[in-house]
Amino acid sequence: MTPLTGGTRVQKVRGLLDAVRAEGRTALTAPEGKVIADAYGIAVPGERLAKDVDEAVSFAARFDGPVVMKIVSPDILHKTDAGGVMVGVAGAADVKSAFHTIVDNARAYAPDARIDGVQVQELLPQGQEVIVGAVTDPTFGKVVAFGLGGVLVEVLKDVTFRLAPVDDGEAASMLDSIRAAEVLRGVRGAEPVDRTALAEQIRRVSELVTDFPEIAEVDLNPVIATADGAVAADIRVILAEGAPKPRRTFTREEILGTMRRLMEPRSIAVIGASNEAGKIGNSVMRNLIDGGFSGEIHPVNPKADDILGHKAYKSVTDVPGEVDVAVFAIPAKFVAAALKEVGRKGIPNAVLIPSGFAETGEHEMQAEIVSIAEEHGTRLLGPNIYGYYATWQDLCATFCTPYDVKGGVALTSQSGGIGMAILGFARTTRTGVSAIVGLGNKSDIDEDDLLTWFGEDPNTECIAMHLEDLKDGRAFVEAARATVPKKPVVVLKAGRTAAGAKAAGSHTGALAGDDAVYDDILRQAGVIRAPGLNEMLEYARALPVLPAPQGDNIVIITGAGGSGVLLSDAVTDNGLSLMEIPPDLDASFRKFIPPFGAAGNPVDITGGEPPSTYEATIRLGLEDPRIHALVLGYWHTIVTPPMVFAELTARVVAEFRERGIEKPVVASLAGDTEVEEACAYLFERGVVAYPYTTEKPVAVLGAKYRWARAAGLLT
Amino acid sequence: MTPLTGGTRVQKVRGLLDAVRAEGRTALTAPEGKVIADAYGIAVPGERLAKDVDEAVSFAARFDGPVVMKIVSPDILHKTDAGGVMVGVAGAADVKSAFHTIVDNARAYAPDARIDGVQVQELLPQGQEVIVGAVTDPTFGKVVAFGLGGVLVEVLKDVTFRLAPVDDGEAASMLDSIRAAEVLRGVRGAEPVDRTALAEQIRRVSELVTDFPEIAEVDLNPVIATADGAVAADIRVILAEGAPKPRRTFTREEILGTMRRLMEPRSIAVIGASNEAGKIGNSVMRNLIDGGFSGEIHPVNPKADDILGHKAYKSVTDVPGEVDVAVFAIPAKFVAAALKEVGRKGIPNAVLIPSGFAETGEHEMQAEIVSIAEEHGTRLLGPNIYGYYATWQDLCATFCTPYDVKGGVALTSQSGGIGMAILGFARTTRTGVSAIVGLGNKSDIDEDDLLTWFGEDPNTECIAMHLEDLKDGRAFVEAARATVPKKPVVVLKAGRTAAGAKAAGSHTGALAGDDAVYDDILRQAGVIRAPGLNEMLEYARALPVLPAPQGDNIVIITGAGGSGVLLSDAVTDNGLSLMEIPPDLDASFRKFIPPFGAAGNPVDITGGEPPSTYEATIRLGLEDPRIHALVLGYWHTIVTPPMVFAELTARVVAEFRERGIEKPVVASLAGDTEVEEACAYLFERGVVAYPYTTEKPVAVLGAKYRWARAAGLLT
Repeated sequence: MTPLTGGTRVQKVRGLLDAVRAEGRTALTAPEGKVIADAYGIAVPGERLAKDVDEAVSFAARFDGPVVMKIVSPDILHKTDAGGVMVGVAGAADVKSAFHTIVDNARAYAPDARIDGVQVQELLPQGQEVIVGAVTDPTFGKVVAFGLGGVLVEVLKDVTFRLAPVDDGEAASMLDSIRAAEVLRGVRGAEPVDRTALAEQIRRVSELVTDFPEIAEVDLNPVIATADGAVAADIRVILAEGAPKPRRTFTREEILGTMRRLMEPRSIAVIGASNEAGKIGNSVMRNLIDGGFSGEIHPVNPKADDILGHKAYKSVTDVPGEVDVAVFAIPAKFVAAALKEVGRKGIPNAVLIPSGFAETGEHEMQAEIVSIAEEHGTRLLGPNIYGYYATWQDLCATFCTPYDVKGGVALTSQSGGIGMAILGFARTTRTGVSAIVGLGNKSDIDEDDLLTWFGEDPNTECIAMHLEDLKDGRAFVEAARATVPKKPVVVLKAGRTAAGAKAAGSHTGALAGDDAVYDDILRQAGVIRAPGLNEMLEYARALPVLPAPQGDNIVIITGAGGSGVLLSDAVTDNGLSLMEIPPDLDASFRKFIPPFGAAGNPVDITGGEPPSTYEATIRLGLEDPRIHALVLGYWHTIVTPPMVFAELTARVVAEFRERGIEKPVVASLAGDTEVEEACAYLFERGVVAYPYTTEKPVAVLGAKYRWARAAGLLT
Repeated sequence: MTPLTGGTRVQKVRGLLDAVRAEGRTALTAPEGKVIADAYGIAVPGERLAKDVDEAVSFAARFDGPVVMKIVSPDILHKTDAGGVMVGVAGAADVKSAFHTIVDNARAYAPDARIDGVQVQELLPQGQEVIVGAVTDPTFGKVVAFGLGGVLVEVLKDVTFRLAPVDDGEAASMLDSIRAAEVLRGVRGAEPVDRTALAEQIRRVSELVTDFPEIAEVDLNPVIATADGAVAADIRVILAEGAPKPRRTFTREEILGTMRRLMEPRSIAVIGASNEAGKIGNSVMRNLIDGGFSGEIHPVNPKADDILGHKAYKSVTDVPGEVDVAVFAIPAKFVAAALKEVGRKGIPNAVLIPSGFAETGEHEMQAEIVSIAEEHGTRLLGPNIYGYYATWQDLCATFCTPYDVKGGVALTSQSGGIGMAILGFARTTRTGVSAIVGLGNKSDIDEDDLLTWFGEDPNTECIAMHLEDLKDGRAFVEAARATVPKKPVVVLKAGRTAAGAKAAGSHTGALAGDDAVYDDILRQAGVIRAPGLNEMLEYARALPVLPAPQGDNIVIITGAGGSGVLLSDAVTDNGLSLMEIPPDLDASFRKFIPPFGAAGNPVDITGGEPPSTYEATIRLGLEDPRIHALVLGYWHTIVTPPMVFAELTARVVAEFRERGIEKPVVASLAGDTEVEEACAYLFERGVVAYPYTTEKPVAVLGAKYRWARAAGLLT
């Protein structure tokens, strides 16, 4: 059936929904569902509502073949349970008898139910049962779902989600995103289903829920997919109980304007600055000064004239000139009053280190400061954070110690503990950092604001975020989509599992969405999801170091056959694939390796080889334009000691880089403890190298590839 | 149907198989399959072979209801493809017509096929389709398989394997080992299937293939499982083309006898010992001497009188007295001759460091030394290895440098590169090691020999093995089953993925079995499988340090809410579960933590707490007998610095240990770099602690739990 055009169909469905609402219902009847399906061009079987037994017989006669008969009652949702469904009824006598049985069953099941009649419906063809639906996710709003129908898939939870609305391409991608995707392509000689028709059903459902935010749920279950089309056997529509609360939003320009003043301030006030060692207001002052911040630093403290050599002010309103950031280092109960002064002074950013707000159950106190901030147009970072660093500004507005390795990764964390882990890891591995930001309770500024800023920040090449929830999943996806084409975004979403989500609930009071929804939608947004804390940290450290791959052909070159096997496992585990080496390239590799070494892929140069064999094969790997990335497996021997391998590898990689040939090179070093120094040496020179693991170097390469794919760099 | 008794049924099936063989066939017909099914009590539908159309009509009349009709031809295996199957045929006229159609179709499909007639079979009830089968795995021999039937599961590969024969318990466990296990328990109101009948089908198939090694494959596909039983709709039996080659086996006593002389030798000969630095024969001599080996060391070198202060012999046959081990440090081409002398001298163990055998394509040279060794009763370690260490004997018979941290873990590796990674990792982490052994080409001694030895070795508390293949999967499982009740066995099976297995193939010439089979059977044997190299190393380091848990109740105590969430995720990821805290215990925890801290589990003591809060809650966790393991999340603060936390935790754990209360305690430390020292301090004192990761401590705890479960310590 051809769908109605935009305006008409919205009007028609609006009228229907209003009528349902007027009756105080939230569940639509099947005939109401059919009206909606027809309006949106969602294919459903031919059907009529029979009010009595004669109508049933007459309608059944109009359809070619047997029919399905179903009770129609606004009070009976689970029709099968009520004995209200009969399938394959044929002939006038059977239709008559079925009508009576269904109505009797329904009366017995729910004596008070209003019975509108019996739906007489065309019997659907045999085909693959699938489910198409839409739900309202607490984080992401309207989301469409697709999966195979039947008990097995309900049990195996093989289902995929996308933000609604989806376009044709996104809808089609859902058919490939389930584990059992092969079934749709036809197995055991079955014909493949009509993918276009199926994708179209998904797209239209996504349009429907986008047009009507009050629709909480749509279920087409099952949709019968055949080689010739896709028809929904049943459509179920449920309305929401209430309307969602709109969230304050900012334009991209507004966000960038405030963020620039937060991350590149010229003047900072420290509210609660102190001369007393051990106080947070003292640590923050000390870190700002010792960190080398070159802008103005204005301590605010009603009881001091001078703090650490800087003139102190009784109130922030006394500070001369424009101030970009007010850092709060005072107890929670004093924050509201000070925030009003900050607002009056016209300071655009308040960094709230104090804890004692929503995370300790003080929701009202948090609501109060949010309301003060909104009134004055002040944006809030925190409360309940360790502060923030901006290394390229030498700006260390935290109570931790300054960090001095400037680099390309911006890290954010919702939790202070994770922030400390970020700091320690960065320091010990000398990770190059552009910023570390605590988000804490996220009363205002959250991941999407920071993502928008770091996306534009020229010092930031990669963004890594630890989060337990998203206040606004759509805003995050929008920011991620704008950022990913420029630089990788890594997310560690804590509370992945039921146990984790429960812990998250008690920690932040945030409603953790279903992880399957997060997983699909973050992937759809092009975000690299880290499976754990250490992976997030390693990705953050390594991604800015590795150049982007320009194609899928990965070659392993190894001195240890055993490492070659494990590296191959890791390649597959990370969704990468080993290049099929063409005969001429194979012959070229064979020139350098012993006759019993294995060419192919992995290229096994064997264990006893001198540095020249490593060098020649690595050179070949970088030189040949058909190869896009190298995974090196080094084996510690007397003939080629670790630092000799590290030096030659770094030298060759640098030489090619000067010639404009940049390929990602990662390495696993198997050997005695000298390999640790060799790995550090390599890492600093752009080769991502790890000792005692074959998994990590390949996992990092896999993360880089996932980004390159999302950014459209690989076709 | 009641199965025949042992002797009778074997005789009956033997006769049948011999007849099939005599006809030069390997595939059995359906009626032949039925004979076997009846003999072994495998439930199949009633059926008769109709040779002509009248027989078909008469047989069909005897069954109550419609029938299934199938072509019977030794030349047509895929009956459906041949148009040789019709389902639900009822009434004489339809049976007649079906008979003709089936025979005509078969003739058209395979004009030369011998057609024995048409099988007329009872139509099976509606039920859950499952598959029961048996195959001959190249590594493990006869293996039974179980999975749900249908296209979906074929696509999703949801199938589980066990070594045949299985007992009742093992067969029943298979029903729970598939991902879709819930389906069998009844979903959406369906009745649960008859589990006993289904398990019985599996058990009987496993008996059949055990009784007849020449049966290569059995397929009951589908088996229809209902609430009342389980009937195989079809049985397919395929015979092997040839008989498997028997492998040389040793008794447990023989293995232990030789292994004791290998691992605790009193006298060692070094063949190819050398005074020349840089030679392997020099390194081995030097390491034996410098390592402090207290037994006799006899260098063998035809050209020297003295090597490194030890009298040298022209031939090993000149060495006086009994020698336990001959270490070979000579080129491959000289090994055979020297090995004959070792044999003549009656030395029970030859440790073959040289490479240049099967791994370089020299299969004949390897076959030659194996045959020499068998002739003389000498057992071979290697060739193509770095040697072996036995730390408690101060025995460093390798060309690497000695390792001096004695401890409880024995590590073995098939690959030299992985061996070097083991060494470097052990040295840098100060892992306590009892032995490190290279297995290389495994021409003789392999993992099962070493497992048997280390299982008995009082110095070894945990065994970790890197392997690419198993020469004899059954011998390994037998050794593992004997060992696991005493100590954990960790296995890193390389070549898990198709790419990895391909690399393994080119590396060792070993046929890598299907990973799903390895995975299920290693689990069945109680082995802890490490997903990667680094995990194997970390498990090896940590398992001997952790006491065994005595129950499933895990409690997280954390100073960082953010760590608590990630630790909860890790608990679930590792198949563990958080204890439901009873109200009285909750109240006890609450006494120590701030009012806004979260009790429950994780116990969130909040970030700003002094050492006394950590100490009080850890004490409570150790004291309460309902809690069985603790996961600690530490957050670096000024109030409780890392070493203060480490000291108090180690002290409290030691105090309880003295009182006889030993529970596994693992910790994740989030903080600045001082946490690294704190982790080392804790690890040395029995608390498994890691910085910058919430995953590793819980993964190690998970490994310990997997072992405890396999060892029967948890009920």
